[in-house]
Amino acid sequence: MNTYICVPFYKTSLTDGFWKDRQKLNADVSIPNVYKRFKETDRIDCLYPKWKRPLSRSDRFYDSDTAKWLEAAAYVLHTNRADYPELEKLCDEVIALFKKRQQVNGYLNSYFQRRPFLPKFCFRPDHELYCAGHIMEAAVAYYQATGKDALLNVAEKYADHIRKRFLIKKNTAFSTPGHEEIELALYRMYDATGKEKYKDMAEFFLNMRGTVKEKTYRMFNNAYDQHEVPVRELTSAEGHAVRAMYLYCGMADMARVSGDKEMLSACKRLFEDACKKMYVTGGIGSDHNGECFTIPYDLPNNVAYSESCAAISFMMFCKRMLLLEKDGRYADVIERIMYNNLLSSTSLDGKAFFYENPLEICKTDLTRSRTIRKKPRLPQWQRQEVFGCSCCPPNINRTVASIGDYIFTENENEIVLHQFIACENNALCVKTDYPVGDKIVVRGKNYGKGFFSVRIPAWCKKATLSLNGKLVDAEPKNGYVTLKVDSGFILELTLDMTPFFVKTHPLCKENRNKVALQRGPVVYCLEEKDNGDLAPLAAVCSGPFTEVKSDLSPLPFIDVTGKELTADATYYQGECSAKEKTLRFTPYFTFANRGESDMKVWVPLA
Amino acid sequence: MNTYICVPFYKTSLTDGFWKDRQKLNADVSIPNVYKRFKETDRIDCLYPKWKRPLSRSDRFYDSDTAKWLEAAAYVLHTNRADYPELEKLCDEVIALFKKRQQVNGYLNSYFQRRPFLPKFCFRPDHELYCAGHIMEAAVAYYQATGKDALLNVAEKYADHIRKRFLIKKNTAFSTPGHEEIELALYRMYDATGKEKYKDMAEFFLNMRGTVKEKTYRMFNNAYDQHEVPVRELTSAEGHAVRAMYLYCGMADMARVSGDKEMLSACKRLFEDACKKMYVTGGIGSDHNGECFTIPYDLPNNVAYSESCAAISFMMFCKRMLLLEKDGRYADVIERIMYNNLLSSTSLDGKAFFYENPLEICKTDLTRSRTIRKKPRLPQWQRQEVFGCSCCPPNINRTVASIGDYIFTENENEIVLHQFIACENNALCVKTDYPVGDKIVVRGKNYGKGFFSVRIPAWCKKATLSLNGKLVDAEPKNGYVTLKVDSGFILELTLDMTPFFVKTHPLCKENRNKVALQRGPVVYCLEEKDNGDLAPLAAVCSGPFTEVKSDLSPLPFIDVTGKELTADATYYQGECSAKEKTLRFTPYFTFANRGESDMKVWVPLA
Repeated sequence: MNTYICVPFYKTSLTDGFWKDRQKLNADVSIPNVYKRFKETDRIDCLYPKWKRPLSRSDRFYDSDTAKWLEAAAYVLHTNRADYPELEKLCDEVIALFKKRQQVNGYLNSYFQRRPFLPKFCFRPDHELYCAGHIMEAAVAYYQATGKDALLNVAEKYADHIRKRFLIKKNTAFSTPGHEEIELALYRMYDATGKEKYKDMAEFFLNMRGTVKEKTYRMFNNAYDQHEVPVRELTSAEGHAVRAMYLYCGMADMARVSGDKEMLSACKRLFEDACKKMYVTGGIGSDHNGECFTIPYDLPNNVAYSESCAAISFMMFCKRMLLLEKDGRYADVIERIMYNNLLSSTSLDGKAFFYENPLEICKTDLTRSRTIRKKPRLPQWQRQEVFGCSCCPPNINRTVASIGDYIFTENENEIVLHQFIACENNALCVKTDYPVGDKIVVRGKNYGKGFFSVRIPAWCKKATLSLNGKLVDAEPKNGYVTLKVDSGFILELTLDMTPFFVKTHPLCKENRNKVALQRGPVVYCLEEKDNGDLAPLAAVCSGPFTEVKSDLSPLPFIDVTGKELTADATYYQGECSAKEKTLRFTPYFTFANRGESDMKVWVPLA
Repeated sequence: MNTYICVPFYKTSLTDGFWKDRQKLNADVSIPNVYKRFKETDRIDCLYPKWKRPLSRSDRFYDSDTAKWLEAAAYVLHTNRADYPELEKLCDEVIALFKKRQQVNGYLNSYFQRRPFLPKFCFRPDHELYCAGHIMEAAVAYYQATGKDALLNVAEKYADHIRKRFLIKKNTAFSTPGHEEIELALYRMYDATGKEKYKDMAEFFLNMRGTVKEKTYRMFNNAYDQHEVPVRELTSAEGHAVRAMYLYCGMADMARVSGDKEMLSACKRLFEDACKKMYVTGGIGSDHNGECFTIPYDLPNNVAYSESCAAISFMMFCKRMLLLEKDGRYADVIERIMYNNLLSSTSLDGKAFFYENPLEICKTDLTRSRTIRKKPRLPQWQRQEVFGCSCCPPNINRTVASIGDYIFTENENEIVLHQFIACENNALCVKTDYPVGDKIVVRGKNYGKGFFSVRIPAWCKKATLSLNGKLVDAEPKNGYVTLKVDSGFILELTLDMTPFFVKTHPLCKENRNKVALQRGPVVYCLEEKDNGDLAPLAAVCSGPFTEVKSDLSPLPFIDVTGKELTADATYYQGECSAKEKTLRFTPYFTFANRGESDMKVWVPLA
C-alpha cells in the first residue's frame, strides 16, 4: 500500500517565484516576530525552572507553541543554514532550556512542572501528550536540519517515559490524548530513528481510541475529541477540526507503515466527508463552539471559524494520503488551502496572523442590534501578532518553511508533480511563475525513472500538455497525466488562467445563488476598500474579466461588470432597480491588509 | 388633524366569512383555554390576598396577562353577550378579585403587593405602569361591553393614585415606565370618560420620556426602552418592539387628541422606518436579544423573533395612524399582519399560540453542531398553550375579538373601507369571502355621507371597480379610490387573486435571490410535510399556479413547478443538476399544525 514516498522539501530547492518570496518573508520577518512575541508573552521564559509568573489555563499549550516555532526554524536552517546563524543560536538556547527543564524521569511540561501539586497524565483534555508530540516533531526536524541531537535526546527520553506510563505501567488516568498529535509525531520519530517502539506507541494510541470510556470537557460529547468509536469505524469528520485531522494523519501513517487496509478505508471516508465541510478557501471547522466540524455544507461565511491550524492539518492529512494513493483530489485540496486559507492567514508584511479565517466581513453584523450592550461573537477582522492560545502563527511558519514537501512524491518508477512551484532537485527542474502565470515547464535531469506524472488541477477546464515539443492528447486519470519519458525530457503544461466563477453545492444554504471568483487556484473576494458598500452589489455570472496590476501581491486585481441593486419598497413584485457597476476582486489572501474593510468571498448573483 | 374616527367593532356585525369563523373559535376555544391555563399557572389565584405560592420574576407581568384576557372576553360579550353568560360570570369573578386586591390608596399589583418589602414605583424596568395600563384597557372594554363599572372604578382609583405619585407628589424613582402601555391606555380612559386628567397624565408620560436620565436593564442601552431622546425627536424604530409600538400608539393618540404636528411627523418617520424592519408576514423585532428592532432589512428567517405581541402592536399603531391620514400603507401593513403573523400565531384548533414567529424551520439548525451539548437558541417550532411570560395569547385573543375595529374609519363626509371583511352596520353592508374569493360587494343602506372610499391593496396589480353596475376608471390616490355615491349605491371590487412571487429589498442579505409566494394578502410557505426535504428545493419565478383544496383552511394549497437541485461536488463551475419538482405551498398561517416539519417562507430561486 505504501506506493509513494515523499520527496522532502530539503531535497528540492525552490528557485525564483511565488513561494520563494513567501519563504523569505517567513524566515526574515514572521519567524523572528513570532519568537519576539513568544518571548514577550513568557512562552520561552516559562521553561526556566525558577521562573515565577503565574500561568493561566491556556498556558498549558505553551510548550507546543515553542516547539512548533523551533520546528519552523529548523526547516529554515535545513535549507538556508548559512544565512541564519543567529536563528540557530536562538534555537540552541531554547533547546537548552527544554533540556534543562526535563525531569530525570523524562517528563517535560513547563506548565505541569510549575504546579507540582497537579498530577501528571491525569486529566485527558489537558494537552500534555499534544505538547509532547510537538516537541518530538521539532526534535526530528532540528536533528535532520543540523545534525544536533540535543532535542532529539530530550524527545526520546520523554517518549520512553510516556511509553513506560501508558504502555507498560498503565498508571495514567486515560489511554488516549484529548488532543491528538503524538500519534503522527511518533511516526515521525519512527521514520527518523527506525526504532520500532515509537511505531508501537503510535499504534497503541490509535488502537485504544474509542475502545475505552474516556473523559472529555463537560460541554462536549465524545465526538469532540474523536473517541466515540474505534478509529477504523469512523465515517464522518467530527468534532474539533485540528484534533480530527491530526488523528487522521496518524491513521494515514499507520496505513502506510503497517499496510492496514481498514485504516486506509477509514481515511478515505473521512477525506470524502471533510471535503463536504470545507470552505472554498480550504478552511475547515466552521463552528467556533469547540472549533468543530458541523454537518456537510454548513459553511457560514461571516461566522466562519475555519482555524488556520485546521486548514494546515488538512494539508498534512492530504500529504499523507498522497503517499497511499495517486489521487488528484488530495493535491487539489492542498492547493486550495495553500493559495487561500494558508496564504491569507499571514499579513502581507509577514508580521501578523489570522487564527480564524472569515469569508465575509460585514460591519453591521456587529452593530445590527444597537440596543444590546453585549456584542455578538464574530471572528476577528484584523490579523494579530500573537494570541492567548497562539498555536496558529508557528504552525503557519513551519508549513510555509516546508512547503516544498508538497511538490513531489515518488516511487521507483515515477515522480509525481503535485504542486506547481519553481524548484530544482537532482532529477527535475521546474520553471514557472504559477499561479501568476499559466505555464509550467518541467525538465528531466538524467531522469531515470521512465515515467513522470503531472497533476491537472480539477479547477482547470482547459489544460495543454506537450512532451518534448509534441502535443500530448491524454485525459487525466484520477487527476494526473502519466507519461513515459526519456532522461532529458521537457514537458510543458499550460493551464487556462481565465478567471471563472464557482458555486457551492445546493445544500449549502448560505451560498445559494452566490458565486465566488477564482483565477487558477486563487480564490478572490470583494473588499469595501475597492468597491464601496458591498451590501447592494451583485455579480453577473459572466466576463469579460480585466486583470489590473495590484500593489498587494503578484496576482492581479480582477475587474468584472456586476450590478448595484436598489429598491423603493421592502417587498416588491417583479425586478428591483439595477445599474451596472464594475466589481473589483482582489485575491482572498490579500484581504484585511489595508485597514478595516467589509469583505465577501461569496457574492449574490444579480 | 383628527380627520377620521374609528367605526368601532361593536357597531358593525361580522356576517358569514373568514373572520366570523375565527372569532367563533377565539370565543369558544381560545379564550376559555387561555383562562384555563392562566388559572393553572396561578395568574388568577395570585390575586387572592391570602394566596401563598412564591412568584418568580416574570410573574410581575401576571396582572397584565389577566387584564388582557378580561379585555378579550369583554369584546366577545360586547358583540355576543347573550351567548356567553358563563364567560361573563367568570369575568365578574376575576374583576371582584382585582377589586378586593386593590389597596385603599388605589395601588394594585398582585406581585408587588405580595412583596411588601419591595417599594412601589421604584425600579423603572419593572412593569407596574404596564400592568396598570392593561387594567385600564380592560376596564374600559368591560364597561363599554356590559355597562358594569366595577373594574372601571378600580382603574380610575388606580389612575388617580398613579397621578398623585407621578404628577403631583413626584415621589417615584422614575418618571416614565420602562414598558410603555399606560400612555395609550390613559387615552382610552380619556376617550371613554372624557376626563381631562387622563389626557394630562398620558401627555406627562409622553413628554417626560427622553428628557430625564432614567434607568433600564444593565444589558441594554437607552434605546431599548425608548428613552434616549424626547419622543418628538425619534427618527428610527429602536429597541424592544412591543414597547416601541405601544409608545407610538400613545404618540399617535396625542397627535389625534391634541393636534400635535411634531408628534405626527415623528409617528410618520417611525412608521416608515418600521416598514424597513418588517417581515413579509408583518412581524417586527427580529432579534430575540431584548425582543428588539435591529437595523433596516436585517430580517433573519430561522432566528426571527417577530413576537406575536409586536405584530399586534404594529396593527394598533397603524389603526391610530389611519385616524390621522387616509394612507393605504397603514391599512396594507394591518392586512399583512392580520392574514399572516396574527393568524399564524394561533393553532388551527384555537388552543395554542406562538410567541415567536419564525419564517424558517430547519431541523439541522439545531443539530448542526453535534459535538456541542448546548443547543443553539432558536424560536420554538410548535405553538404552546401558555408561556412563562404569556403576554401573547390574550393579546391575540383581544385582537381577533375586536378585528372589526380595523374595517372602517369615517368622518362626516365619507366612510373608508380598509379591510375586506363580510359585515353589516347601519350604513353599509359588505359581502365577500375574501381572502378566499376575489370579489367585495359593498351596498349603501340609506348612506347619507355622499362619499365612499375603498382601499386598493398595494399587493394587487389588477383591481376592477364598478359603481352601480358601471365600471369605474379611477387611479387610487394614496391607496384609496374615493367615489361620490348615492344612498343605496352598490360597489363591486374585484381583486386579482392570481398568486404571485415577491422579493425583498436587495439590502436584506438573508433573502437575496429568494422569493416568497403570496395569494392576495396571504403569504405562503413550503412545509416538509408536503414537499419532503426542503433543503435542495428551488423556486422558478413563474407560474402556472394550481390551486388545490386544503383541509387546513379555506385557502387553497398552491402547486407550482420548481426544481430540486443536486451536485456531485462541494464546489463546481457552471450549473448544478436540477430536475423539475412540484412545490406545494400552504398558507403561512397554517404551518406547524401537522406535527414538526421543516418550513420556509423564502425559497431560493433556481
